[in-house]
Amino acid sequence: MRAARLHAYDEPLRLEDVPEPRVTEPFDVIVRIGGAGLCRTDLHFIEGMWAEQAGVQLDLPFILGHENAGWVEEVGAGVEHVQPGDAVICHVQMTCGVCPACRRGDDMHCAQGVFPGIAAPGGFAELLKTNARTLVPLPDGVEPADVAAHADAGLTAIHAVKKAAATLTAGQRCVLIGIGGLGHIGLQCMKAMSPATVIAVDTRPETLELAAEWGADHTVLADGGQAEAVQELTDGHGAEAVIDFVGEFGTIEYGKQLVRRHGTYYVVGYGDEIRIPAIQVIFNEISFVGNLVGTYLDLVELIELHTQGKVTLRTQTYSLEAINDAIADLDAGRIQGRAILVPEGS
Amino acid sequence: MRAARLHAYDEPLRLEDVPEPRVTEPFDVIVRIGGAGLCRTDLHFIEGMWAEQAGVQLDLPFILGHENAGWVEEVGAGVEHVQPGDAVICHVQMTCGVCPACRRGDDMHCAQGVFPGIAAPGGFAELLKTNARTLVPLPDGVEPADVAAHADAGLTAIHAVKKAAATLTAGQRCVLIGIGGLGHIGLQCMKAMSPATVIAVDTRPETLELAAEWGADHTVLADGGQAEAVQELTDGHGAEAVIDFVGEFGTIEYGKQLVRRHGTYYVVGYGDEIRIPAIQVIFNEISFVGNLVGTYLDLVELIELHTQGKVTLRTQTYSLEAINDAIADLDAGRIQGRAILVPEGS
Amino acid sequence: MRAARLHAYDEPLRLEDVPEPRVTEPFDVIVRIGGAGLCRTDLHFIEGMWAEQAGVQLDLPFILGHENAGWVEEVGAGVEHVQPGDAVICHVQMTCGVCPACRRGDDMHCAQGVFPGIAAPGGFAELLKTNARTLVPLPDGVEPADVAAHADAGLTAIHAVKKAAATLTAGQRCVLIGIGGLGHIGLQCMKAMSPATVIAVDTRPETLELAAEWGADHTVLADGGQAEAVQELTDGHGAEAVIDFVGEFGTIEYGKQLVRRHGTYYVVGYGDEIRIPAIQVIFNEISFVGNLVGTYLDLVELIELHTQGKVTLRTQTYSLEAINDAIADLDAGRIQGRAILVPEGS
Amino acid sequence: MRAARLHAYDEPLRLEDVPEPRVTEPFDVIVRIGGAGLCRTDLHFIEGMWAEQAGVQLDLPFILGHENAGWVEEVGAGVEHVQPGDAVICHVQMTCGVCPACRRGDDMHCAQGVFPGIAAPGGFAELLKTNARTLVPLPDGVEPADVAAHADAGLTAIHAVKKAAATLTAGQRCVLIGIGGLGHIGLQCMKAMSPATVIAVDTRPETLELAAEWGADHTVLADGGQAEAVQELTDGHGAEAVIDFVGEFGTIEYGKQLVRRHGTYYVVGYGDEIRIPAIQVIFNEISFVGNLVGTYLDLVELIELHTQGKVTLRTQTYSLEAINDAIADLDAGRIQGRAILVPEGS
Repeated sequence: MRAARLHAYDEPLRLEDVPEPRVTEPFDVIVRIGGAGLCRTDLHFIEGMWAEQAGVQLDLPFILGHENAGWVEEVGAGVEHVQPGDAVICHVQMTCGVCPACRRGDDMHCAQGVFPGIAAPGGFAELLKTNARTLVPLPDGVEPADVAAHADAGLTAIHAVKKAAATLTAGQRCVLIGIGGLGHIGLQCMKAMSPATVIAVDTRPETLELAAEWGADHTVLADGGQAEAVQELTDGHGAEAVIDFVGEFGTIEYGKQLVRRHGTYYVVGYGDEIRIPAIQVIFNEISFVGNLVGTYLDLVELIELHTQGKVTLRTQTYSLEAINDAIADLDAGRIQGRAILVPEGS
Repeated sequence: MRAARLHAYDEPLRLEDVPEPRVTEPFDVIVRIGGAGLCRTDLHFIEGMWAEQAGVQLDLPFILGHENAGWVEEVGAGVEHVQPGDAVICHVQMTCGVCPACRRGDDMHCAQGVFPGIAAPGGFAELLKTNARTLVPLPDGVEPADVAAHADAGLTAIHAVKKAAATLTAGQRCVLIGIGGLGHIGLQCMKAMSPATVIAVDTRPETLELAAEWGADHTVLADGGQAEAVQELTDGHGAEAVIDFVGEFGTIEYGKQLVRRHGTYYVVGYGDEIRIPAIQVIFNEISFVGNLVGTYLDLVELIELHTQGKVTLRTQTYSLEAINDAIADLDAGRIQGRAILVPEGS
Repeated sequence: MRAARLHAYDEPLRLEDVPEPRVTEPFDVIVRIGGAGLCRTDLHFIEGMWAEQAGVQLDLPFILGHENAGWVEEVGAGVEHVQPGDAVICHVQMTCGVCPACRRGDDMHCAQGVFPGIAAPGGFAELLKTNARTLVPLPDGVEPADVAAHADAGLTAIHAVKKAAATLTAGQRCVLIGIGGLGHIGLQCMKAMSPATVIAVDTRPETLELAAEWGADHTVLADGGQAEAVQELTDGHGAEAVIDFVGEFGTIEYGKQLVRRHGTYYVVGYGDEIRIPAIQVIFNEISFVGNLVGTYLDLVELIELHTQGKVTLRTQTYSLEAINDAIADLDAGRIQGRAILVPEGS
Repeated sequence: MRAARLHAYDEPLRLEDVPEPRVTEPFDVIVRIGGAGLCRTDLHFIEGMWAEQAGVQLDLPFILGHENAGWVEEVGAGVEHVQPGDAVICHVQMTCGVCPACRRGDDMHCAQGVFPGIAAPGGFAELLKTNARTLVPLPDGVEPADVAAHADAGLTAIHAVKKAAATLTAGQRCVLIGIGGLGHIGLQCMKAMSPATVIAVDTRPETLELAAEWGADHTVLADGGQAEAVQELTDGHGAEAVIDFVGEFGTIEYGKQLVRRHGTYYVVGYGDEIRIPAIQVIFNEISFVGNLVGTYLDLVELIELHTQGKVTLRTQTYSLEAINDAIADLDAGRIQGRAILVPEGS
């Protein structure tokens, strides 16, 4: 099959013919890729940042791609709930199903979890090997390429939003920092799940216009005066919830000031450090809550919201053969929404 | 002041001049009535049903009216959070604020609670005496007469809906039985608070048309085939939540069959009996959850949803002097939405 | 292997040699039985009550036994988390692991669940075929025969108790009706999990003495005056929680009167009917919550409590060959605690 | 009346005769002090640390003392739930009862809250003026001086412990850092409320001996190897919950490493800074939860646990006239448990 492989850090991917993956275990499934999202994390892998800074060594030459959707091609002997031909989106992690975390629905913390596209070959190829537990069937009329970006970007957003939405009532405020790839999905999820007043903060005026269309009740330009503007919108008290989809470029520094007494800061994006005297955390009784990508059931809900039209995605399609162009475009900030790679013939 | 008083059960109310209520305790407040909702419960009081069947004796001659909104006229010495002139809606119960139930936000179960319009003079008059804890300030632009019906009908609806909404996710189903006075508010609250799929059931085709406008995802005519129709809409499994705003005329009998395994039946309306073998409750692990009118904070949320335009009310205005006409119209089913009584000059 | 099989309803079981079960699917596991609990439900199966009243036809000749523990004998190709020789207790249901219920930790509502001992051959034999997902490993020093009764009786008790304990605080009251097979485990679980005051109700004075040893704060003899006695212990308000492990002989009739305003009745035992006017459910805002047997993780917790010595079981051991004696003893009320059947050589 | 007043920072308190406080508002209550706890915070006030570092200026000459219990002496016109002669413990904050925080049971975040002993005269005197909402009646047999320390130290401990206990199941682990004034109460509360395994960490071997008596399952000496020791006790995964009652001297630095994936760090003590890269918070999906002193209902629960004998306090009594001795003893580390000041004749 055709695949894009990384042969050395900081080099372009090579389009080449590689052996097809095979079913070897009872729960294995081969998925024919309909679309694979290109994520900024892929760029960081290519640059070698993860190898250098996080000790995550790719098994070169390596097929990246962790946001995958397509059609079931072949299933192992123990698989009964999906069949060849089914359209599916792949949860980002292959999980065991029998550890306590999997049992309680917290499968992202599976004791045996493996991420295709990071610790096993990914989806920048015609076929992907995954396990049956990762697969969420798509309803009729939902095309794999149209939802691939939900497998990671959307899933991370909904996971954090669900925690916040569960605590918010009408009249309470939620600040969303960063209405980009994750944030624009998070904003729509929040509006679908909660009556809270949403204040969208972003550095780009055109993004804030979109945010208003997606349902933001207030938009605030992050031009240096954003903390003051949010305080004004919240009567000087701050917001019950702040969800930070950025986590770098100073967002934590100003964002933590926007949390109302007894409120919560949801950390989604990363890069910066959280730094705060314990006395402030106690005196205001605030919390900082970390958020990983979502669970399998979070993905089911997100696909449901997508199917109902409550969440829409912005995507830009590239042929798999043009992956290096997509990478260059992403690196240069030329992509609107998410770049989706589609193998020929899909 | 002018007031409508019941002098004997099953007689028309008499419009007459009565002494004005006075502040006697530190937390007393006198409210000038802007609007008072007429409730079917008032009819039952007039007929003597509560006296006969529930042992609740009114202190005749008596001023009914438990759905009240207006403007603060006078406050006691201990009142600091409202001032004369403030527009307010009155929570249905005067509560003590110091019992455990009040302390935990469950003020409807106040150990000392007193309902104006039932155990103390009500709002079918120019002035109402209540206590300061009942008052929810109205934002600019919200007229007391426009929201009075939220004080009881709306408050009961949102209270039940909040319990259900807290458990429902996208793709799960909620059946609402009865889209009348309570149900039409409950439906709008559910859509504002949850991404669940709403199935509205009613006996009146024209009400179902309105239900669709208010956001119901499916409407089902209760013509005898409603249980079957709901089962079809839920793949034969039933719904995760059923909220019964009727509770009589056989709704519980068919409604309990519509609860999916591990689902919940929210009892709001009453009149019928719940009757089910324990083995069915266990085998399907279903619950029956009772719902009283809501808490003070539920009312705050409801007014917020109203102010944001997420909930709209149908009301029909009568002058207080015409209250017996309103009663006759309600009794005869001639009222669209809620009848609101407005004293002259308000 | 040796097994006890039912050949016809209402006849003694026959001890005979039958073919051994075999691994045929990747997730199959064969367990060598160390102990199998005898449950009143088994008697009901033998009598044909389930066939007659619930339409559950056994595939005669049939091996009963749904409370099983032992040692892993053989595993299928897909099984990695247990190995031959491991001591294990078997959750009562074989579940799929991929339906929404399994995914969210609510595996008792598995869309594909099968109960060995009811819908597949059970544990009154030397070997049992189950699937790998059912198995909870036992820590060193915990013998299968000593905990077998937790697989169903204990699991049902802890499941209901966990729901109640999650809502109870110090000073609140929980009434436990029936301190028998389930109740004596439930009582100990409640004391381990919650600071609530426990009021144990039973018809047998000697059981109440044991209840006090197991930690009951108050004991009440169900001699007709139990409702009054509980009201006295709860200042006339009733208890925040009532857990009914009996559900027949009139317990629901008096038990429902013991629920405090805004309290909950947990239905565990069955046989009687729940019957209550909706107005009482609403006016007091009480709930009736059904309880099935617990989840896999509930069983893990229960084994942990057992291992820590916080829960102790009363059991009486019989050789598998003597199963008809055990049945006769159970039927005649001659068994203290749970009868456990142990195959020769185990 | 006699009172101890601070006339200038860093000077001894002066014992002197001052005018008695008077009821001036409907909800005012005068309490005759039975015991007032001396807290390290009082020392910090005397030293001027709060004035200097937190901008909290005392209104000199000032009566400190925020841990108060005694008997009701006089009540305002609006007070009905307590009467002169009642034994009571005083919640640390005078709250309004009508703001949203008070309404939802989160009264520590009252919009109008005032702390006696900090922002109003405190309890190092014969009489204290507070408001009726602060008072928790004491059951017969519980002496004010015996429980005064619960008003702040105990209340803070139980508040944090309740949050953690609500998430912990049998087999999960909770690390408690610091088994001193707060920690020894927190430890007993945790054991009363949860079946979790408790690992107590302290720098003092003799304190760890007491910790074992109070129910700690494991004790770990904080001698530099504590992080390693806890990891060993948790199979290298860390604990589901870490409650840090110290928050300085480096506890946060090592404590944050002890939180298991998806676990929580409860911040109670303060002094140090929380500092952690966002990537670690996300990757492990951990949370930092701030904790203020508890609510009124937390105090009710704590007094209940005390009354039931589930929590015991260590106290050392001083006459109010000897307050400067008590301060010197506290400063020099010579006090076992909490110093309680008792006015003559109480």
